Amino acid sequence: MTKIYSSSTKKSLAASLAGQNHADTLHNSDDLALIKRRHASLGGSILFYKEPAHIVRGKGIWLFDNKEKRYLDCYNNVASVGHCHPRVVEALTQQSATLNIHTRYLHENVVNYTEHLLSTFPEELNVVMMTCTGSEANDLAMQLARMVSGNNGAVVMENSYHGNTCLVSQLSTCLGSGNKQSDYVASVEPPNSYRGSFRADQRLSDRQLSQKYANLVDKEIQTLENNGHGVAAFLCDTIFDTQGGLVAPKHYFKQVYKKIRAAGGLCIADEVQAGFGRTGKMWGFEHFDVVPDIVTLGKPMGAGHPVAGLVTTRAIADEFAKRSFYFNTFGGNCVSALVADTVLSIIEQEKLIEKCAQVSVYLREKLLLLQDKYPLIGNVRGLGMFIGIELVRDRKTLEPAQEEALTIAELMKREGVLLGVTGRLGNVIKVRPPLIFSKENADELIDKLDLALREIA
Amino acid sequence: MTKIYSSSTKKSLAASLAGQNHADTLHNSDDLALIKRRHASLGGSILFYKEPAHIVRGKGIWLFDNKEKRYLDCYNNVASVGHCHPRVVEALTQQSATLNIHTRYLHENVVNYTEHLLSTFPEELNVVMMTCTGSEANDLAMQLARMVSGNNGAVVMENSYHGNTCLVSQLSTCLGSGNKQSDYVASVEPPNSYRGSFRADQRLSDRQLSQKYANLVDKEIQTLENNGHGVAAFLCDTIFDTQGGLVAPKHYFKQVYKKIRAAGGLCIADEVQAGFGRTGKMWGFEHFDVVPDIVTLGKPMGAGHPVAGLVTTRAIADEFAKRSFYFNTFGGNCVSALVADTVLSIIEQEKLIEKCAQVSVYLREKLLLLQDKYPLIGNVRGLGMFIGIELVRDRKTLEPAQEEALTIAELMKREGVLLGVTGRLGNVIKVRPPLIFSKENADELIDKLDLALREIA
Repeated sequence: MTKIYSSSTKKSLAASLAGQNHADTLHNSDDLALIKRRHASLGGSILFYKEPAHIVRGKGIWLFDNKEKRYLDCYNNVASVGHCHPRVVEALTQQSATLNIHTRYLHENVVNYTEHLLSTFPEELNVVMMTCTGSEANDLAMQLARMVSGNNGAVVMENSYHGNTCLVSQLSTCLGSGNKQSDYVASVEPPNSYRGSFRADQRLSDRQLSQKYANLVDKEIQTLENNGHGVAAFLCDTIFDTQGGLVAPKHYFKQVYKKIRAAGGLCIADEVQAGFGRTGKMWGFEHFDVVPDIVTLGKPMGAGHPVAGLVTTRAIADEFAKRSFYFNTFGGNCVSALVADTVLSIIEQEKLIEKCAQVSVYLREKLLLLQDKYPLIGNVRGLGMFIGIELVRDRKTLEPAQEEALTIAELMKREGVLLGVTGRLGNVIKVRPPLIFSKENADELIDKLDLALREIA
Repeated sequence: MTKIYSSSTKKSLAASLAGQNHADTLHNSDDLALIKRRHASLGGSILFYKEPAHIVRGKGIWLFDNKEKRYLDCYNNVASVGHCHPRVVEALTQQSATLNIHTRYLHENVVNYTEHLLSTFPEELNVVMMTCTGSEANDLAMQLARMVSGNNGAVVMENSYHGNTCLVSQLSTCLGSGNKQSDYVASVEPPNSYRGSFRADQRLSDRQLSQKYANLVDKEIQTLENNGHGVAAFLCDTIFDTQGGLVAPKHYFKQVYKKIRAAGGLCIADEVQAGFGRTGKMWGFEHFDVVPDIVTLGKPMGAGHPVAGLVTTRAIADEFAKRSFYFNTFGGNCVSALVADTVLSIIEQEKLIEKCAQVSVYLREKLLLLQDKYPLIGNVRGLGMFIGIELVRDRKTLEPAQEEALTIAELMKREGVLLGVTGRLGNVIKVRPPLIFSKENADELIDKLDLALREIA
């Protein structure tokens, strides 16, 4: 879920962001008129920021509003190759002017793309199923897992987000109480060495910490087995966005996968956020020395074009095909396939993963220097270009600095930098820029963050 | 579901269409190599036709294969404004070169589109929620209906298709036994004056026939109330595709809606197929003098670009927003919104609905003349540019001519015409061309259909 406001603050923000309230803060009456029209005609209309950003143009790492104010984009992961990349525009233009049709006729684009995509995966993951959104990919992955395992239940993280279909919104434990949790969903505490159950004992090795958190899954498996659902799947991001940009200890996934598979379940890696280089490797799971049974993909896959999918094994795909039937009108059409293929080529040819890995080390160092300077920064963590900066009012009690996080986001917008706020407690600054983010961009981010932190200190 | 093969023949066809079998029929070894690569890397890979159509280019009503063979497109409803319409390509190019971003920043495109779209609806339907696919739209509609009604069950048609998410695939009764039907789904016989339960009594007025079929819903409502699910929704196409292009009698929906609403349920019109002018009116429900509570949209909405959504009332949207939260990363982004807006403008400015209504009358007359000539044609029916031609071996016993329907589809492909086969019995030729279909195109279709019918007579 892309959000600048955490789920815990969702309701009050939804209220404060309703059209009439914008009237109190907005200086720009043209924007106010547009906001009112929007609230009148569009459902699910929450906007970021007290005074919404009226973005009209993007180029590379930059976004521009309707007053030509320039913003450094430190938030948007979808345009990971940079906004309006000319090769993406060219692919979209050329193919949509030639043919845009579904996959029931033969066309080379979808075949070229699936082969290209599979070349980036371990060889046992050798089949692609195309969808249009990450929600559809996670929904389909769960359908596969249920059919193949014969079980019904799912183990997910606390405060997870996996999408908006009926099924995956039930698996999204960060969503409000309006989404009835079914008893086939069991949620487990995510590993959190800063604030989690096992934080106190600093003597734990990475392997021991992994084991302690992995062992929490035992109880959830037991619950699902006792209530008759059994375990169809463990569905988990490989970097924990809605939990505040947490990173699992090195051996965590290996140990959890072992338990899930012993219970007859499949391991689904949700790489809708982490995939396509975000973490400094092509796939997030590569950091953890595991091979999932199903990997789901989305967001940056088409640089904004609605294309998504999943990768799985031949055995799982065949088992599903024996018992059911899958077709998606727009999924894998010749335009979507060419755009996705182009994005993947750009990531490879412009060496964005290597770049992301390098710049992220530089940025992390700079952030640690800021942490030395400002007691408000309790923790800096992340993988690659997915960084969480947890703000606390007291480094001993870890009192969450939720309002400060929101204020920082607003001040940064004023300064021309877009970033987000996330986490169960709403006190984690989320830095998740396009992968083309440079050292110079990192310097600008740090300078302005320094300024904002000084202002609220 | 776009398909040339009916659901009843799905499994055998899936088998016969596997890569190795194509080897027996294929003359083109390049295509065979591509098909093999496709089956190896793509899940859900079923292709139309014994010898798949390798389409590489489209323009207006025409599709062209890799040998430059030209096909008259009588099948594809997605490109309803014609393949590769220059205004659609221009919108896609211009906006994707300028900005492609989600709806959490303010942008005029999504507001302009939602207002434009709502101008085509009755005034009580005044809120749009944007998705990327018809599946997502139907899934979200059911979530709304459940939340607002407080009930869980759904009444759908027998042999229905509403999409591929976990929830809507359970509501798609045409899918195989692999999709476990849950007891919250109750399916009812669709009105069918040619072959249905009440066909015998020709003295029935339209109102009486409507009532007889509508009364079948009583039992399903009762079942859902008895098993504790209650009725959340009646989810129904306004033209029955997978049931063989059936058209409900004039008063059917009015009478069913009354029963559903009395049971506390919402009425969802699935206009993913019927909407945007297909039936000769903008919305299929306009033929039946009803106003649904939710209308779902998809396929032709973006002429192939993955954009879809639903339209509902302010009260329903607000009730949902109180209890849950909806965001869709790509839904309503500034590219999708502009493309959809352009498609709607083309439909209006090129008067495609009026054209479709006129040409469909002409085409229907010609088809009735063919029916006089060939006993195989048992029934011609439909609304606007959605026409079903039911083939029977005997006009008295109505023995379905399933193989003949498949043969006709293959012969028509040979003759350069693409059309489909549908219906529970797989014996209905489906004619569903782009809305730009002209009288000249109709003449060509009729001439070639005449030829194919003569060949198998």
